Amino acid sequence: MVSSTDEIFVNKTPSSSNWYERAVRLFPGGISHNIRYFSPRPFYTQEAKGKFLYDVDGNKYIDYWMGHWALILGHSPAVVMNTLNKQIVHGTLHGTTNVCSVELGELIQNSIPLIELMRFCTTGSEATMYACRIARAYTGRRKIAKAIGGWHGFNTDLMKSVNYPFDLCEGLGLIEDESKYVESIPFNDLEGSIKHLDKIKEDLACIIIEPLLGGAGCIPSSIDYLRGLSEYCTRNNINLIMDEIVTGYRLGFGTMSEQFKIEPDLFTLGKIVGGGLPIGVVGGKKELMQITDPVRNTDKSNRCYIGGGTFSCNPLTMSAGLATLNFLNRNKTKVYPKINELGERTRTGLRKIFSDYKVNVEITGKGSLFLTHFLNERISKIRNADDVALASDGRLHKYHFALMSLYGIFFLPSKMGAISAEHRQIDVHNLIRATTQILESGILSSKKD
Amino acid sequence: MVSSTDEIFVNKTPSSSNWYERAVRLFPGGISHNIRYFSPRPFYTQEAKGKFLYDVDGNKYIDYWMGHWALILGHSPAVVMNTLNKQIVHGTLHGTTNVCSVELGELIQNSIPLIELMRFCTTGSEATMYACRIARAYTGRRKIAKAIGGWHGFNTDLMKSVNYPFDLCEGLGLIEDESKYVESIPFNDLEGSIKHLDKIKEDLACIIIEPLLGGAGCIPSSIDYLRGLSEYCTRNNINLIMDEIVTGYRLGFGTMSEQFKIEPDLFTLGKIVGGGLPIGVVGGKKELMQITDPVRNTDKSNRCYIGGGTFSCNPLTMSAGLATLNFLNRNKTKVYPKINELGERTRTGLRKIFSDYKVNVEITGKGSLFLTHFLNERISKIRNADDVALASDGRLHKYHFALMSLYGIFFLPSKMGAISAEHRQIDVHNLIRATTQILESGILSSKKD
Repeated sequence: MVSSTDEIFVNKTPSSSNWYERAVRLFPGGISHNIRYFSPRPFYTQEAKGKFLYDVDGNKYIDYWMGHWALILGHSPAVVMNTLNKQIVHGTLHGTTNVCSVELGELIQNSIPLIELMRFCTTGSEATMYACRIARAYTGRRKIAKAIGGWHGFNTDLMKSVNYPFDLCEGLGLIEDESKYVESIPFNDLEGSIKHLDKIKEDLACIIIEPLLGGAGCIPSSIDYLRGLSEYCTRNNINLIMDEIVTGYRLGFGTMSEQFKIEPDLFTLGKIVGGGLPIGVVGGKKELMQITDPVRNTDKSNRCYIGGGTFSCNPLTMSAGLATLNFLNRNKTKVYPKINELGERTRTGLRKIFSDYKVNVEITGKGSLFLTHFLNERISKIRNADDVALASDGRLHKYHFALMSLYGIFFLPSKMGAISAEHRQIDVHNLIRATTQILESGILSSKKD
Repeated sequence: MVSSTDEIFVNKTPSSSNWYERAVRLFPGGISHNIRYFSPRPFYTQEAKGKFLYDVDGNKYIDYWMGHWALILGHSPAVVMNTLNKQIVHGTLHGTTNVCSVELGELIQNSIPLIELMRFCTTGSEATMYACRIARAYTGRRKIAKAIGGWHGFNTDLMKSVNYPFDLCEGLGLIEDESKYVESIPFNDLEGSIKHLDKIKEDLACIIIEPLLGGAGCIPSSIDYLRGLSEYCTRNNINLIMDEIVTGYRLGFGTMSEQFKIEPDLFTLGKIVGGGLPIGVVGGKKELMQITDPVRNTDKSNRCYIGGGTFSCNPLTMSAGLATLNFLNRNKTKVYPKINELGERTRTGLRKIFSDYKVNVEITGKGSLFLTHFLNERISKIRNADDVALASDGRLHKYHFALMSLYGIFFLPSKMGAISAEHRQIDVHNLIRATTQILESGILSSKKD
C-alpha cells in the first residue's frame, strides 16, 4: 500500500484539478462553505442520485454526507422529483401567500404540536437568529446561552465558541459588544452549565441548544442534561430554544425533544423539512410567536421584527418539503426503524473492527447519525466538543480520506455521517470491510499526514 | 362604483378566505414575510406563469410584484424550466464543490469584473451581513453606515432606520449595544451624509448602500450622491459596499455601479442571479475577500469567518441562475432596452394621466422599476425614504388595491413594480387605462380608507 492516498486521489480525479483551478479564481479557497474544502483539494461533483455522488471524472462515491445531512431520502428521490417537475410549471417563486406553504405548515404543526405558530424563512442561520430575537423580545432580557461547540449557523448573534479553541473570538470582523451577550456552557455537564447560567440568569433571555451536537462531533445530549436545562429555564423564566435543524424528522417523525419528553418554548428546523431545497423554520409557543405578528402589532414598540425573506415560502421548497414529509409520514414505520437500525449496525460494526485492531475509538451517534472519534492519551471519552477537539490528531481525516480515495465511500472528512433511506445493509458491510482494509494497511498509524 | 373595493375583493376571492383562516392558525398574521400581508387579507396563489399569478379561486392577475422583483424573465420561463427539469434528476443539493457553481461564478465575474472573488450564500440577508463582517475584519473598525430607509434584510447587524419612524429602534428583541454601531445617513443628501460620517469616520468600517432604494420607495440615487460617497470612502479608507441585490442585472447586464462608473469594494447580489431560486452573493476586491479564505487563513486571529450555508451552491439554484444569466447575456440587447422602455412608457403614461386628473403624484424609478407616490401639502418631492413616509396617506394602498381588486393588476400594495421580459406594451396600456378608470371613479379621493 502506497502511503500517499493524496496521490491516489489526485490521480483518479484529474478533471477536478481543472475545476479547482477555476474555482480558486472565483471563490476564496475555491469554496463557498468553509468545511467543503479538504486537503489537498476537493473533487467536483456533476451529479448525485440515490446514495451516490458522481464527480467530473466519473468516479462514483457512496455518499454519507448527504447534503449536509439534509437528504434523508437520498439524492433526488422519485417522490421529490415528481413533485418538483409539476411545481416548476406552476412557478418557483410566487412572492405571495400561497397554498403549498399552508399545507407544509399544517403537516409540521400536526407532527410537532408544540409548534403552535411558526414562520418559514430560507436558512437555518436565519431561523436561529430570529428565534433568539423573539426570546429577547419576549423576555425583555439580552443574554443568550449556547453550548460550547454548538453550531447554529453563521449569523452574528451566535458566533461564539463555535470553533476550537472555543474561548477565542470567532475571527475578525466580530465585535466584542455583540458577543459579550453570548454565554457558552459546557455541553452534557449540567452542574457546570448551571454554574455559568446562575451568574447571568437575571439577564438571560434564552438557552439555544442542539439535542445532538451536529457540526461539533455527533454527540447526543444526555436526557438528564436536556431535562435539567429545561427545568432550569422553567424555574427562571428563560426561553428554551431547541435547535432541531439536524435532528428534526431525522430520528423519528418529529423532534428529538419529543422523544426526550421536553417542551421547548421555540424550535428551529431546517434541512429535512425543505426536502433538499433551502429552508429554515422558527416556531413554538403561540404567546412567543405572536410577538412577531405584523397585523396584530403595528407599532415598533410592541413588535419583534423578523424576516421571512424574498425566498420564504417559495413553492419549490414548500412542495419538496411537503413531498418529503408526506412520504416520511406514510412510511415512518418503515423508514425510521430501517435507517436507525443501519446506524446501530454501523456503530456496532465499526466499534468491533476498531477494537479487533486495538485502535481506541469511540463511535458516537444516534439513529442514522454516526461519527468515529480516535481517542488518545489526552482523551478517553467523548462527551462534548472539547473532547472532540482534544481527540483530533489527524487520524479521522486520514480515515475518511482513505475511504473516499481508495473505496469510493464519501464522508466530508472529519464530519458526521448520515444514513439515508437509500442505504442498504450491503453499504454497512462495505464500510466495515473498507475500514478493516484501511486498518490492515497501516495508513492510520503512518506518521505522514 | 361601490366604494368598498374590499368587499369586491373579498367576494371574488372566497377560497382565499378559507386558506387565510388556515394560515392564521399556523403563521403569526397568516404570513411568513411581513409585507405579504395586506388588509383585509391577502389572496392565496396556486400557480404563476409568465406574467400572471393565479389565485385559488382562479382569478388571474398581471403581476408587477414578480417574486419580490427577482423574476426578470417572468414566472417559470422556458429556459429555466428546461434547465431545472434536467437538474432535478442530477441532484438538488450535492453539498459539495460542484461544477455549476463554478460556471455561475465565472459568468458573474465576467460580467462584473470588480467581483474579483465572491462567495455564494443563500439569501440577501446573509450576503449583506457577511459583507459588513468582511469590511469590519479588513479595516479593523466597527461602525457601519447605511441610508435611512435602506433595506438590507433582517439580519441583526443592519436592523436600524429601516421602518418609519426611522429614528426609533426597529422593534423588540434588538440590543442597543449592537445597533449603536450602525449610523444612518440621509439618502441623496451628500452634505448631510458627510456631516454624519465625519463624526464617526475614525471607527467607520463601511458604508452599505443601495444605488436605488428598493423597499423604501424605488428611489434612484443621484449620480453625484453615490460618487460623493465613493470618493469619501476612498479618502478615508472606508469600504464601500454596494447592495445591488435588487439592481444587479436588472437595469442592464451588470450593475448600476458600473453604469455610474463607481468602483465599490464589495457588492452584494441576490434575486435575479438565482433565477427565481434562493441565492445571495457577496463579492468584490480580492484583498478584502481573501480574508475569508479558510485555506489560506487557518487561524482564528487572521481569518474572517463567513458562512455559505447548507444550501449554498446548491445545483438547482446554480443552474437556474446560470440559465437566467446566460439568457440575459445572449439577449441583453433585446431584453434590457425593451423592459427599460416599457418602464419609461409606464412612468410617462402614469405621470400624464395623474396630471390630467390633477392628482399630484411623483412616479419614481429607473429602467423597468417604478412606483407612484401621492404628494400632499407636506411633501412635494420624493428624494428619500423620509419623503416617502411623509407622502404616505393611504392613497397608494388604495390605488394598488383597486388595481388588484377591480382590474386584476397586481402590485404588492404600496410596493415598487417591476416589468419583466414577459410584459408587453398592451400591459402598460391596460395599467394606464385602469388607472384612468380608478381616477374617474373617485375611489382615491374617498374619505373611507
